[in-house]
Amino acid sequence: MSVAVVGCGVIGRSWMRVFTRAGMPVRVWDPSPEARVTALAWHDAEVTRDRRGGGGAVVASSLPAALDGVRWVQESGPESLDAKRALFAELDRHAPPEAILASSTSTLDMSAIAEGLPGARRCVVAHPVNPPHVVPAVEVLGGLHTDAAVVQAACDLLRSVGQVPVRMHRYVPGFLLNRMQAALVREAIALLEAGVADADAIDAVIRDGLGLRWALMGPFGVANTNADGGAREYFTRYGASFRMLMDDLAGSTTLTPELIERIGGGVDASYPGVPRERLREWRDRMVERITAMKATDHP
Amino acid sequence: MSVAVVGCGVIGRSWMRVFTRAGMPVRVWDPSPEARVTALAWHDAEVTRDRRGGGGAVVASSLPAALDGVRWVQESGPESLDAKRALFAELDRHAPPEAILASSTSTLDMSAIAEGLPGARRCVVAHPVNPPHVVPAVEVLGGLHTDAAVVQAACDLLRSVGQVPVRMHRYVPGFLLNRMQAALVREAIALLEAGVADADAIDAVIRDGLGLRWALMGPFGVANTNADGGAREYFTRYGASFRMLMDDLAGSTTLTPELIERIGGGVDASYPGVPRERLREWRDRMVERITAMKATDHP
Repeated sequence: MSVAVVGCGVIGRSWMRVFTRAGMPVRVWDPSPEARVTALAWHDAEVTRDRRGGGGAVVASSLPAALDGVRWVQESGPESLDAKRALFAELDRHAPPEAILASSTSTLDMSAIAEGLPGARRCVVAHPVNPPHVVPAVEVLGGLHTDAAVVQAACDLLRSVGQVPVRMHRYVPGFLLNRMQAALVREAIALLEAGVADADAIDAVIRDGLGLRWALMGPFGVANTNADGGAREYFTRYGASFRMLMDDLAGSTTLTPELIERIGGGVDASYPGVPRERLREWRDRMVERITAMKATDHP
Repeated sequence: MSVAVVGCGVIGRSWMRVFTRAGMPVRVWDPSPEARVTALAWHDAEVTRDRRGGGGAVVASSLPAALDGVRWVQESGPESLDAKRALFAELDRHAPPEAILASSTSTLDMSAIAEGLPGARRCVVAHPVNPPHVVPAVEVLGGLHTDAAVVQAACDLLRSVGQVPVRMHRYVPGFLLNRMQAALVREAIALLEAGVADADAIDAVIRDGLGLRWALMGPFGVANTNADGGAREYFTRYGASFRMLMDDLAGSTTLTPELIERIGGGVDASYPGVPRERLREWRDRMVERITAMKATDHP
Protein backbone atom coordinates (compact mmCIF):
# COMPACT_ATOMS: atom_id res chain seq x y z
CA MET A 1 0.00 0.00 0.00
CA SER A 2 1.24 3.46 -0.79
CA VAL A 3 1.47 6.43 1.49
CA ALA A 4 1.58 10.21 1.09
CA VAL A 5 3.82 12.43 3.17
CA VAL A 6 2.56 16.00 3.01
CA GLY A 7 4.89 18.65 4.33
CA CYS A 8 8.48 17.53 4.28
CA GLY A 9 10.51 19.49 6.78
CA VAL A 10 12.56 17.66 9.41
CA ILE A 11 9.59 15.63 10.67
CA GLY A 12 8.07 14.91 7.27
CA ARG A 13 11.28 13.67 5.71
CA SER A 14 11.85 11.38 8.70
CA TRP A 15 8.34 9.94 8.22
CA MET A 16 9.29 9.23 4.58
CA ARG A 17 11.99 6.90 5.81
CA VAL A 18 9.66 5.23 8.33
CA PHE A 19 7.36 4.20 5.50
CA THR A 20 9.90 3.35 2.79
CA ARG A 21 11.88 1.26 5.28
CA ALA A 22 8.70 -0.78 5.80
CA GLY A 23 8.52 -1.41 2.07
CA MET A 24 5.88 1.17 1.22
CA PRO A 25 6.08 3.41 -1.83
CA VAL A 26 5.90 7.02 -0.62
CA ARG A 27 4.66 10.04 -2.52
CA VAL A 28 5.83 13.38 -1.17
CA TRP A 29 4.35 16.82 -1.41
CA ASP A 30 5.34 20.20 -0.01
CA PRO A 31 4.37 23.63 -1.36
CA SER A 32 8.06 24.55 -1.41
CA PRO A 33 9.97 23.00 -4.37
CA GLU A 34 13.20 23.49 -2.44
CA ALA A 35 11.85 21.57 0.58
CA ARG A 36 10.79 18.72 -1.70
CA VAL A 37 14.24 18.43 -3.25
CA THR A 38 16.02 18.67 0.11
CA ALA A 39 13.78 16.04 1.68
CA LEU A 40 14.28 13.60 -1.17
CA ALA A 41 18.05 14.05 -1.04
CA TRP A 42 18.02 13.53 2.73
CA HIS A 43 15.87 10.43 2.34
CA ASP A 44 18.12 8.85 -0.25
CA ALA A 45 21.21 9.56 1.82
CA GLU A 46 19.47 7.93 4.78
CA VAL A 47 18.72 4.81 2.73
CA THR A 48 22.40 4.60 1.86
CA ARG A 49 23.37 5.09 5.50
CA ASP A 50 21.11 2.56 7.18
CA ARG A 51 21.18 0.05 4.29
CA ARG A 52 17.80 -1.32 5.23
CA GLY A 53 16.36 -0.81 1.75
CA GLY A 54 12.60 -0.81 1.36
CA GLY A 55 10.22 1.15 -0.82
CA GLY A 56 11.06 4.23 -2.83
CA ALA A 57 10.08 7.86 -2.35
CA VAL A 58 9.09 10.15 -5.19
CA VAL A 59 8.10 13.78 -5.34
CA ALA A 60 4.58 14.23 -6.68
CA SER A 61 3.75 16.93 -9.22
CA SER A 62 0.86 18.27 -7.12
CA LEU A 63 -0.99 17.59 -3.88
CA PRO A 64 -3.80 15.66 -5.65
CA ALA A 65 -1.18 13.59 -7.46
CA ALA A 66 0.53 12.80 -4.15
CA LEU A 67 -2.76 11.58 -2.69
CA ASP A 68 -3.84 9.47 -5.62
CA GLY A 69 -4.50 5.90 -4.50
CA VAL A 70 -2.86 6.15 -1.07
CA ARG A 71 -4.21 4.53 2.11
CA TRP A 72 -2.43 6.75 4.61
CA VAL A 73 -1.58 10.43 4.58
CA GLN A 74 0.94 11.75 7.09
CA GLU A 75 0.58 15.52 7.35
CA SER A 76 3.53 17.46 8.82
CA GLY A 77 2.78 21.03 7.79
CA PRO A 78 3.04 24.27 9.75
CA GLU A 79 1.84 24.09 13.38
CA SER A 80 -1.10 26.50 13.17
CA LEU A 81 -4.79 25.70 13.38
CA ASP A 82 -5.68 27.75 10.30
CA ALA A 83 -2.97 26.12 8.21
CA LYS A 84 -3.94 22.63 9.36
CA ARG A 85 -7.64 23.26 8.75
CA ALA A 86 -6.99 24.49 5.22
CA LEU A 87 -4.65 21.58 4.51
CA PHE A 88 -7.01 18.93 5.91
CA ALA A 89 -9.82 20.32 3.75
CA GLU A 90 -7.58 19.68 0.72
CA LEU A 91 -6.55 16.25 1.95
CA ASP A 92 -10.14 15.27 2.57
CA ARG A 93 -11.14 16.49 -0.89
CA HIS A 94 -8.43 14.65 -2.83
CA ALA A 95 -7.51 11.53 -0.87
CA PRO A 96 -9.34 8.25 -1.62
CA PRO A 97 -12.30 7.76 0.74
CA GLU A 98 -10.65 4.80 2.47
CA ALA A 99 -7.43 6.69 3.26
CA ILE A 100 -6.68 7.70 6.85
CA LEU A 101 -5.57 11.30 7.31
CA ALA A 102 -3.01 11.60 10.11
CA SER A 103 -1.50 14.80 11.48
CA SER A 104 1.92 15.10 13.13
CA THR A 105 0.62 18.02 15.19
CA SER A 106 2.21 18.32 18.62
CA THR A 107 -0.30 20.79 20.06
CA LEU A 108 -3.61 20.87 18.20
CA ASP A 109 -6.88 19.06 18.83
CA MET A 110 -8.15 16.99 15.89
CA SER A 111 -11.71 18.03 16.86
CA ALA A 112 -10.75 21.57 15.82
CA ILE A 113 -8.64 20.65 12.77
CA ALA A 114 -11.35 18.45 11.28
CA GLU A 115 -14.35 20.52 12.40
CA GLY A 116 -17.00 20.48 9.69
CA LEU A 117 -15.02 18.26 7.33
CA PRO A 118 -17.03 15.63 5.46
CA GLY A 119 -14.30 13.12 6.27
CA ALA A 120 -13.80 14.08 9.93
CA ARG A 121 -14.33 10.42 10.83
CA ARG A 122 -11.04 9.43 9.16
CA CYS A 123 -8.85 12.15 10.70
CA VAL A 124 -6.47 11.30 13.54
CA VAL A 125 -3.48 12.77 15.35
CA ALA A 126 -0.27 10.73 15.00
CA HIS A 127 2.27 12.84 16.85
CA PRO A 128 5.81 11.43 16.64
CA VAL A 129 8.92 12.07 18.69
CA ASN A 130 11.68 13.80 16.74
CA PRO A 131 12.92 12.12 14.60
CA PRO A 132 10.33 9.36 14.03
CA HIS A 133 12.61 7.15 11.92
CA VAL A 134 14.78 6.84 15.04
CA VAL A 135 12.45 7.19 18.05
CA PRO A 136 9.46 4.82 17.83
CA ALA A 137 6.75 6.33 20.09
CA VAL A 138 3.81 8.01 18.31
CA GLU A 139 0.91 9.55 20.24
CA VAL A 140 -2.41 8.59 18.64
CA LEU A 141 -5.65 10.43 19.35
CA GLY A 142 -8.86 10.98 17.43
CA GLY A 143 -11.10 14.03 17.44
CA LEU A 144 -14.74 14.16 18.50
CA HIS A 145 -15.88 12.81 15.14
CA THR A 146 -13.14 10.26 14.51
CA ASP A 147 -14.29 6.65 14.17
CA ALA A 148 -12.94 4.34 16.84
CA ALA A 149 -12.07 1.92 14.02
CA VAL A 150 -9.89 4.60 12.42
CA VAL A 151 -7.95 5.09 15.65
CA GLN A 152 -7.48 1.34 15.88
CA ALA A 153 -6.40 1.10 12.23
CA ALA A 154 -3.94 3.94 12.77
CA CYS A 155 -2.37 2.11 15.70
CA ASP A 156 -2.18 -1.09 13.66
CA LEU A 157 -0.54 0.64 10.72
CA LEU A 158 1.99 2.45 12.90
CA ARG A 159 2.87 -0.80 14.66
CA SER A 160 3.25 -2.55 11.29
CA VAL A 161 5.91 -0.03 10.22
CA GLY A 162 7.88 -0.45 13.45
CA GLN A 163 6.59 2.50 15.47
CA VAL A 164 5.07 2.22 18.94
CA PRO A 165 1.57 3.74 18.90
CA VAL A 166 0.58 5.30 22.22
CA ARG A 167 -3.16 5.63 22.46
CA MET A 168 -4.68 8.61 24.24
CA HIS A 169 -8.30 8.80 25.38
CA ARG A 170 -8.75 12.55 25.26
CA TYR A 171 -7.07 15.77 24.29
CA VAL A 172 -4.91 17.78 26.68
CA PRO A 173 -2.49 20.53 25.60
CA GLY A 174 0.95 19.05 24.96
CA PHE A 175 -0.45 15.50 24.93
CA LEU A 176 1.41 13.06 27.20
CA LEU A 177 4.91 13.54 25.90
CA ASN A 178 5.32 17.28 25.97
CA ARG A 179 3.55 17.56 29.31
CA MET A 180 5.87 15.09 31.01
CA GLN A 181 8.86 16.67 29.31
CA ALA A 182 7.74 20.15 30.39
CA ALA A 183 7.29 18.95 33.97
CA LEU A 184 10.87 17.69 34.07
CA VAL A 185 12.31 20.68 32.19
CA ARG A 186 10.48 23.13 34.45
CA GLU A 187 12.09 21.60 37.52
CA ALA A 188 15.49 21.44 35.77
CA ILE A 189 15.32 25.15 34.94
CA ALA A 190 14.22 26.02 38.48
CA LEU A 191 17.17 24.09 39.93
CA LEU A 192 19.55 25.94 37.62
CA GLU A 193 17.94 29.29 38.37
CA ALA A 194 18.15 28.71 42.13
CA GLY A 195 21.84 27.86 41.85
CA VAL A 196 21.43 24.31 43.19
CA ALA A 197 23.68 22.92 40.46
CA ASP A 198 25.20 23.80 37.09
CA ALA A 199 23.46 22.91 33.82
CA ASP A 200 25.87 20.06 33.08
CA ALA A 201 25.27 18.50 36.52
CA ILE A 202 21.50 18.69 36.04
CA ASP A 203 21.87 17.04 32.64
CA ALA A 204 24.24 14.40 34.06
CA VAL A 205 21.66 13.24 36.62
CA ILE A 206 19.39 12.41 33.70
CA ARG A 207 21.83 11.04 31.11
CA ASP A 208 23.88 8.97 33.57
CA GLY A 209 21.06 8.30 36.00
CA LEU A 210 17.31 8.45 35.52
CA GLY A 211 17.45 8.38 31.72
CA LEU A 212 19.18 5.01 31.65
CA ARG A 213 16.20 3.41 33.36
CA TRP A 214 13.66 5.48 31.41
CA ALA A 215 15.07 4.17 28.12
CA LEU A 216 13.71 0.80 29.28
CA MET A 217 10.75 1.53 31.54
CA GLY A 218 8.35 4.39 32.12
CA PRO A 219 7.86 6.01 35.52
CA PHE A 220 5.35 3.39 36.68
CA GLY A 221 7.57 0.56 35.46
CA VAL A 222 10.54 2.03 37.31
CA ALA A 223 8.52 2.27 40.53
CA ASN A 224 7.52 -1.36 40.00
CA THR A 225 11.16 -2.50 40.02
CA ASN A 226 12.19 -0.22 42.89
CA ALA A 227 10.28 -2.04 45.63
CA ASP A 228 10.10 -5.77 46.27
CA GLY A 229 6.30 -5.59 46.32
CA GLY A 230 6.16 -3.62 43.07
CA ALA A 231 4.49 -0.32 42.19
CA ARG A 232 1.70 -0.77 44.75
CA GLU A 233 4.19 -1.15 47.58
CA TYR A 234 6.38 1.65 46.20
CA PHE A 235 3.65 4.28 46.09
CA THR A 236 2.12 3.11 49.37
CA ARG A 237 5.39 3.11 51.29
CA TYR A 238 6.79 6.31 49.79
CA GLY A 239 3.44 8.06 49.29
CA ALA A 240 3.84 10.52 52.16
CA SER A 241 7.43 11.52 51.42
CA PHE A 242 6.65 11.66 47.71
CA ARG A 243 3.75 13.98 48.44
CA MET A 244 6.02 16.28 50.49
CA LEU A 245 8.48 16.38 47.63
CA MET A 246 5.76 17.06 45.04
CA ASP A 247 4.48 19.94 47.16
CA ASP A 248 7.99 21.42 47.25
CA LEU A 249 8.56 21.40 43.47
CA ALA A 250 8.99 24.62 41.55
CA GLY A 251 6.18 26.48 39.83
CA SER A 252 6.53 27.92 36.36
CA THR A 253 9.63 29.93 35.61
CA THR A 254 10.10 32.82 33.24
CA LEU A 255 12.70 32.12 30.61
CA THR A 256 14.61 35.38 30.76
CA PRO A 257 17.42 35.98 28.24
CA GLU A 258 19.90 35.65 31.13
CA LEU A 259 18.51 32.25 32.10
CA ILE A 260 18.50 31.06 28.49
CA GLU A 261 22.12 32.16 28.19
CA ARG A 262 23.00 30.15 31.31
CA ILE A 263 21.39 27.07 29.75
CA GLY A 264 23.13 27.67 26.43
CA GLY A 265 26.49 28.29 28.04
CA GLY A 266 26.05 25.21 30.20
CA VAL A 267 25.35 22.98 27.22
CA ASP A 268 28.35 24.45 25.37
CA ALA A 269 30.49 23.50 28.37
CA SER A 270 29.10 19.94 28.31
CA TYR A 271 30.23 19.35 24.72
CA PRO A 272 33.24 21.61 24.14
CA GLY A 273 34.09 21.85 20.45
CA VAL A 274 31.58 19.21 19.33
CA PRO A 275 29.48 20.48 16.39
CA ARG A 276 25.74 20.18 16.96
CA GLU A 277 25.36 18.06 13.84
CA ARG A 278 27.74 15.48 15.29
CA LEU A 279 25.75 15.44 18.54
CA ARG A 280 22.59 14.77 16.57
CA GLU A 281 24.19 11.97 14.56
CA TRP A 282 25.49 10.41 17.74
CA ARG A 283 22.11 10.69 19.43
CA ASP A 284 20.33 9.04 16.50
CA ARG A 285 22.94 6.31 16.13
CA MET A 286 22.80 5.48 19.83
CA VAL A 287 19.01 5.51 20.00
CA GLU A 288 18.96 3.09 17.06
CA ARG A 289 21.40 0.82 18.87
CA ILE A 290 19.33 0.92 22.07
CA THR A 291 16.07 0.16 20.25
CA ALA A 292 17.79 -2.68 18.38
CA MET A 293 18.95 -4.10 21.73
CA LYS A 294 15.43 -3.84 23.08
CA ALA A 295 14.05 -5.62 20.02
CA THR A 296 16.19 -8.68 20.71
CA ASP A 297 16.62 -8.77 24.50
CA HIS A 298 13.34 -8.95 26.39
CA PRO A 299 12.61 -9.29 30.12
CA MET B 1 43.39 1.78 49.14
CA SER B 2 40.73 0.04 51.15
CA VAL B 3 37.16 1.07 51.68
CA ALA B 4 34.44 0.41 54.25
CA VAL B 5 30.84 -0.18 53.34
CA VAL B 6 28.66 0.38 56.39
CA GLY B 7 25.08 -0.81 56.11
CA CYS B 8 24.67 -3.47 53.50
CA GLY B 9 21.09 -3.60 52.30
CA VAL B 10 20.33 -3.33 48.58
CA ILE B 11 22.28 -0.08 48.18
CA GLY B 12 25.22 -1.02 50.39
CA ARG B 13 25.83 -4.37 48.72
CA SER B 14 25.76 -2.70 45.32
CA TRP B 15 28.38 -0.20 46.54
CA MET B 16 30.54 -3.19 47.58
CA ARG B 17 30.69 -4.27 43.97
CA VAL B 18 31.44 -0.72 42.75
CA PHE B 19 34.58 -0.68 44.89
CA THR B 20 35.76 -4.28 44.49
CA ARG B 21 35.31 -4.03 40.71
CA ALA B 22 37.72 -1.09 40.81
CA GLY B 23 40.28 -3.28 42.57
CA MET B 24 39.72 -2.02 46.10
CA PRO B 25 39.55 -4.31 49.11
CA VAL B 26 36.23 -3.72 50.85
CA ARG B 27 35.40 -4.24 54.49
CA VAL B 28 31.69 -4.55 55.25
CA TRP B 29 29.74 -3.89 58.39
CA ASP B 30 26.08 -4.04 59.25
CA PRO B 31 24.52 -4.45 62.72
CA SER B 32 22.53 -7.42 61.36
CA PRO B 33 24.60 -10.61 60.99
CA GLU B 34 22.02 -11.89 58.51
CA ALA B 35 22.34 -8.77 56.34
CA ARG B 36 26.13 -9.17 56.31
CA VAL B 37 25.94 -12.77 55.15
CA THR B 38 23.30 -12.01 52.51
CA ALA B 39 25.28 -9.06 51.15
CA LEU B 40 28.48 -11.05 50.88
CA ALA B 41 26.71 -13.89 49.09
CA TRP B 42 25.09 -11.41 46.69
CA HIS B 43 28.45 -9.75 46.07
CA ASP B 44 30.23 -13.00 45.30
CA ALA B 45 27.46 -14.09 42.95
CA GLU B 46 27.74 -10.74 41.21
CA VAL B 47 31.50 -11.20 40.74
CA THR B 48 30.80 -14.55 39.12
CA ARG B 49 28.12 -13.01 36.92
CA ASP B 50 29.97 -9.98 35.57
CA ARG B 51 33.41 -11.66 35.52
CA ARG B 52 35.16 -8.36 35.93
CA GLY B 53 37.18 -9.53 38.94
CA GLY B 54 38.72 -6.91 41.18
CA GLY B 55 39.28 -6.64 44.92
CA GLY B 56 37.68 -8.81 47.54
CA ALA B 57 35.01 -8.09 50.11
CA VAL B 58 35.15 -9.34 53.67
CA VAL B 59 32.81 -8.98 56.60
CA ALA B 60 34.46 -7.20 59.51
CA SER B 61 34.06 -8.43 63.09
CA SER B 62 32.96 -5.00 64.33
CA LEU B 63 32.40 -1.47 63.10
CA PRO B 64 35.82 -0.26 64.33
CA ALA B 65 37.46 -3.24 62.61
CA ALA B 66 35.65 -2.35 59.36
CA LEU B 67 36.99 1.19 59.53
CA ASP B 68 40.57 0.31 60.38
CA GLY B 69 42.94 1.84 57.82
CA VAL B 70 40.30 2.76 55.23
CA ARG B 71 40.31 5.96 53.16
CA TRP B 72 36.64 6.01 52.23
CA VAL B 73 33.54 5.03 54.16
CA GLN B 74 30.27 4.57 52.27
CA GLU B 75 27.40 4.70 54.73
CA SER B 76 24.07 3.22 53.59
CA GLY B 77 22.17 2.83 56.85
CA PRO B 78 18.54 3.61 57.69
CA GLU B 79 17.17 6.85 56.23
CA SER B 80 16.49 8.74 59.46
CA LEU B 81 18.33 11.77 60.79
CA ASP B 82 18.73 10.30 64.27
CA ALA B 83 20.11 7.04 62.92
CA LYS B 84 22.53 8.81 60.57
CA ARG B 85 23.71 11.20 63.30
CA ALA B 86 24.43 8.34 65.69
CA LEU B 87 26.19 6.35 62.98
CA PHE B 88 28.29 9.28 61.75
CA ALA B 89 29.43 9.93 65.35
CA GLU B 90 30.72 6.34 65.41
CA LEU B 91 32.31 6.63 61.99
CA ASP B 92 34.02 9.88 62.94
CA ARG B 93 35.33 8.31 66.17
CA HIS B 94 36.79 5.17 64.62
CA ALA B 95 37.77 5.99 61.04
CA PRO B 96 41.34 7.18 60.33
CA PRO B 97 41.53 11.00 60.29
CA GLU B 98 42.27 11.11 56.57
CA ALA B 99 39.22 8.99 55.62
CA ILE B 100 36.26 10.61 53.90
CA LEU B 101 32.86 9.74 55.35
CA ALA B 102 30.21 9.55 52.62
CA SER B 103 26.50 8.98 53.11
CA SER B 104 24.15 7.40 50.57
CA THR B 105 21.26 9.44 52.00
CA SER B 106 18.64 10.40 49.45
CA THR B 107 16.89 13.02 51.57
CA LEU B 108 19.01 14.37 54.42
CA ASP B 109 21.24 17.43 54.67
CA MET B 110 24.85 16.70 55.64
CA SER B 111 24.81 19.93 57.65
CA ALA B 112 22.34 18.23 59.97
CA ILE B 113 23.90 14.75 59.94
CA ALA B 114 27.36 16.07 60.82
CA GLU B 115 26.27 18.89 63.11
CA GLY B 116 28.69 19.21 66.00
CA LEU B 117 30.93 16.37 64.82
CA PRO B 118 34.69 16.95 65.27
CA GLY B 119 35.19 15.61 61.75
CA ALA B 120 32.30 17.46 60.07
CA ARG B 121 34.82 18.76 57.52
CA ARG B 122 35.26 15.27 56.04
CA CYS B 123 31.59 14.34 55.76
CA VAL B 124 29.85 14.41 52.40
CA VAL B 125 26.69 13.15 50.73
CA ALA B 126 27.27 10.66 47.90
CA HIS B 127 23.74 9.70 46.87
CA PRO B 128 23.63 7.00 44.20
CA VAL B 129 20.94 5.85 41.82
CA ASN B 130 19.65 2.37 42.53
CA PRO B 131 21.64 0.20 41.96
CA PRO B 132 24.98 2.05 41.89
CA HIS B 133 26.98 -0.84 40.42
CA VAL B 134 24.76 -0.48 37.34
CA VAL B 135 23.73 3.20 37.16
CA PRO B 136 26.73 5.55 37.37
CA ALA B 137 25.36 8.93 38.54
CA VAL B 138 26.10 9.90 42.17
CA GLU B 139 24.93 13.21 43.64
CA VAL B 140 27.72 14.81 45.69
CA LEU B 141 27.10 17.57 48.20
CA GLY B 142 28.89 18.74 51.32
CA GLY B 143 27.34 20.19 54.45
CA LEU B 144 27.99 23.64 55.87
CA HIS B 145 31.24 22.49 57.49
CA THR B 146 32.53 20.21 54.75
CA ASP B 147 35.89 21.18 53.25
CA ALA B 148 35.74 22.06 49.56
CA ALA B 149 38.77 19.80 49.11
CA VAL B 150 36.80 16.88 50.56
CA VAL B 151 33.99 17.42 48.05
CA GLN B 152 36.57 17.53 45.26
CA ALA B 153 38.33 14.40 46.55
CA ALA B 154 34.97 12.62 46.77
CA CYS B 155 34.23 13.46 43.13
CA ASP B 156 37.70 12.28 42.11
CA LEU B 157 37.36 8.99 43.96
CA LEU B 158 33.90 8.29 42.56
CA ARG B 159 35.12 9.03 39.04
CA SER B 160 38.12 6.74 39.57
CA VAL B 161 35.81 3.80 40.36
CA GLY B 162 33.69 4.42 37.25
CA GLN B 163 30.81 6.42 38.72
CA VAL B 164 29.72 9.83 37.43
CA PRO B 165 29.83 12.34 40.29
CA VAL B 166 27.23 15.09 39.99
CA ARG B 167 28.20 18.07 42.07
CA MET B 168 25.51 20.11 43.81
CA HIS B 169 26.08 23.59 45.24
CA ARG B 170 23.45 23.54 47.96
CA TYR B 171 20.90 21.36 49.67
CA VAL B 172 17.31 21.06 48.47
CA PRO B 173 14.89 18.29 49.53
CA GLY B 174 15.15 15.38 47.09
CA PHE B 175 18.36 16.73 45.58
CA LEU B 176 18.34 16.97 41.77
CA LEU B 177 17.39 13.43 40.92
CA ASN B 178 14.36 12.83 43.08
CA ARG B 179 13.00 16.30 42.36
CA MET B 180 13.13 15.83 38.59
CA GLN B 181 11.75 12.32 38.95
CA ALA B 182 8.92 13.57 41.18
CA ALA B 183 8.09 16.32 38.67
CA LEU B 184 7.70 13.77 35.90
CA VAL B 185 5.90 11.20 38.07
CA ARG B 186 3.48 13.84 39.37
CA GLU B 187 2.43 14.70 35.84
CA ALA B 188 2.27 11.01 34.90
CA ILE B 189 -0.06 10.28 37.81
CA ALA B 190 -2.23 13.31 37.02
CA LEU B 191 -2.60 12.16 33.39
CA LEU B 192 -3.65 8.70 34.58
CA GLU B 193 -6.02 10.12 37.19
CA ALA B 194 -7.66 12.41 34.62
CA GLY B 195 -8.19 9.48 32.24
CA VAL B 196 -6.06 10.97 29.45
CA ALA B 197 -4.35 7.63 28.87
CA ASP B 198 -3.76 4.24 30.47
CA ALA B 199 -0.72 3.54 32.64
CA ASP B 200 0.98 1.49 29.93
CA ALA B 201 0.55 4.28 27.37
CA ILE B 202 2.03 6.83 29.76
CA ASP B 203 4.98 4.51 30.39
CA ALA B 204 5.38 3.84 26.65
CA VAL B 205 5.81 7.55 25.87
CA ILE B 206 8.84 7.49 28.17
CA ARG B 207 10.39 4.07 27.42
CA ASP B 208 9.91 4.26 23.63
CA GLY B 209 10.14 8.04 23.37
CA LEU B 210 11.64 10.58 25.75
CA GLY B 211 13.69 8.05 27.72
CA LEU B 212 15.66 6.97 24.66
CA ARG B 213 17.05 10.48 24.31
CA TRP B 214 17.43 10.99 28.06
CA ALA B 215 19.67 7.91 28.28
CA LEU B 216 22.11 9.99 26.21
CA MET B 217 21.45 13.64 27.02
CA GLY B 218 19.81 15.60 29.81
CA PRO B 219 16.93 18.00 29.23
CA PHE B 220 19.22 20.88 28.27
CA GLY B 221 21.24 18.66 25.93
CA VAL B 222 18.04 17.45 24.26
CA ALA B 223 16.88 21.03 23.72
CA ASN B 224 20.28 21.76 22.23
CA THR B 225 19.83 19.09 19.54
CA ASN B 226 16.18 19.95 18.87
CA ALA B 227 16.80 23.33 17.22
CA ASP B 228 19.37 24.20 14.58
CA GLY B 229 20.58 27.12 16.70
CA GLY B 230 20.86 24.97 19.83
CA ALA B 231 19.42 25.40 23.32
CA ARG B 232 19.41 29.21 23.11
CA GLU B 233 17.27 29.15 19.98
CA TYR B 234 15.09 26.36 21.35
CA PHE B 235 14.14 28.15 24.56
CA THR B 236 13.82 31.52 22.83
CA ARG B 237 11.62 30.25 20.01
CA TYR B 238 9.47 27.96 22.12
CA GLY B 239 9.60 30.06 25.31
CA ALA B 240 6.03 31.36 25.10
CA SER B 241 4.36 28.05 24.22
CA PHE B 242 6.53 26.27 26.75
CA ARG B 243 5.42 28.74 29.41
CA MET B 244 1.75 28.13 28.53
CA LEU B 245 2.30 24.40 28.86
CA MET B 246 4.16 24.77 32.18
CA ASP B 247 1.28 26.84 33.54
CA ASP B 248 -1.16 24.08 32.56
CA LEU B 249 0.67 21.24 34.33
CA ALA B 250 -0.90 19.39 37.22
CA GLY B 251 -0.38 20.27 40.85
CA SER B 252 0.25 17.65 43.51
CA THR B 253 -2.01 14.64 43.56
CA THR B 254 -3.11 12.53 46.47
CA LEU B 255 -2.13 8.90 46.07
CA THR B 256 -5.38 7.26 47.07
CA PRO B 257 -5.49 3.45 47.34
CA GLU B 258 -7.69 3.44 44.20
CA LEU B 259 -5.12 5.42 42.24
CA ILE B 260 -2.28 3.22 43.47
CA GLU B 261 -4.27 0.16 42.41
CA ARG B 262 -4.72 1.65 38.92
CA ILE B 263 -0.96 2.16 38.66
CA GLY B 264 -0.25 -1.34 39.95
CA GLY B 265 -2.81 -2.94 37.66
CA GLY B 266 -1.44 -0.95 34.73
CA VAL B 267 2.10 -2.14 35.32
CA ASP B 268 0.88 -5.73 35.68
CA ALA B 269 -0.76 -5.37 32.27
CA SER B 270 2.47 -4.04 30.77
CA TYR B 271 4.42 -7.14 31.78
CA PRO B 272 1.92 -10.00 31.91
CA GLY B 273 3.40 -13.02 33.67
CA VAL B 274 6.94 -11.62 33.93
CA PRO B 275 8.29 -11.99 37.47
CA ARG B 276 9.58 -8.75 38.99
CA GLU B 277 13.00 -10.27 39.55
CA ARG B 278 13.34 -10.95 35.83
CA LEU B 279 12.35 -7.35 35.06
CA ARG B 280 15.07 -6.14 37.41
CA GLU B 281 17.69 -8.40 35.88
CA TRP B 282 16.70 -7.22 32.40
CA ARG B 283 16.81 -3.57 33.48
CA ASP B 284 20.27 -3.96 34.99
CA ARG B 285 21.62 -5.96 32.05
CA MET B 286 20.31 -3.42 29.55
CA VAL B 287 21.58 -0.40 31.51
CA GLU B 288 25.01 -2.04 31.61
CA ARG B 289 24.89 -2.54 27.85
CA ILE B 290 23.86 1.07 27.26
CA THR B 291 26.59 2.45 29.52
CA ALA B 292 29.13 0.18 27.81
CA MET B 293 28.00 1.57 24.43
CA LYS B 294 28.35 5.11 25.75
CA ALA B 295 31.84 4.35 27.03
CA THR B 296 33.05 3.42 23.54
CA ASP B 297 30.92 5.53 21.16
CA HIS B 298 31.25 9.27 21.78
CA PRO B 299 29.78 12.24 19.90
